[in-house]
Amino acid sequence: MEIRKVNLEEKLDLFSDYWSPKIVAALNGQQIKLVKCKGDFDMHHHESEDELFYVIDGKLFIELDNETLELNPGELVVIPKGVQHRPFAPEEVHVMLFEPASTLNTGNVNNNLTVSELDQI
Amino acid sequence: MEIRKVNLEEKLDLFSDYWSPKIVAALNGQQIKLVKCKGDFDMHHHESEDELFYVIDGKLFIELDNETLELNPGELVVIPKGVQHRPFAPEEVHVMLFEPASTLNTGNVNNNLTVSELDQI
Repeated sequence: MEIRKVNLEEKLDLFSDYWSPKIVAALNGQQIKLVKCKGDFDMHHHESEDELFYVIDGKLFIELDNETLELNPGELVVIPKGVQHRPFAPEEVHVMLFEPASTLNTGNVNNNLTVSELDQI
Repeated sequence: MEIRKVNLEEKLDLFSDYWSPKIVAALNGQQIKLVKCKGDFDMHHHESEDELFYVIDGKLFIELDNETLELNPGELVVIPKGVQHRPFAPEEVHVMLFEPASTLNTGNVNNNLTVSELDQI
């Protein structure tokens, strides 16, 4: 079995589309994804998956019911299942996601932002 | 439910012991841990858990059966279950781990490096 390390910056150089997570690693039924975000995403929740956002570069905001989180590089947050959240980013931000392989990016919402077949890079 | 972000540098400032992972977040039966490493760890494997190492700061080496990986900041690797590995670090390195809550740091080996009760910080 070949074991290869993953360099996040090299992977981030491979794509430029926003709000479209790419799988870079998998373990224990979970996936590590990279996503570039800019602009507004939709408010949504995930019925059965907790979701982790870790900011690599830039600034990510996550609107919740009664507050808005601001995540800077080196910061992470876990959004528990069932919790409504709306990520947004006035400027481009690079984010690592850690979540079950079953997680759909728009959660309970299905619209033009939904990406159901993720690329592995 | 209060949702709090985690700043990794702030968490890393809270401890100084080596090879003793601290839990900083949990989701979907998995945990995010921070660990400071310096010196040699033992060769071991995990029977049923894949393990992810992500280097935040410093340089981590992981000896495998027939090669040694060198991980720099912004690089990660997944060590699949059953694969023998020995982390080591000539200089201090700060690492984030993603793994199931059941994972023991020394895997199949139980010795003075084993930490069976992890602190949450």
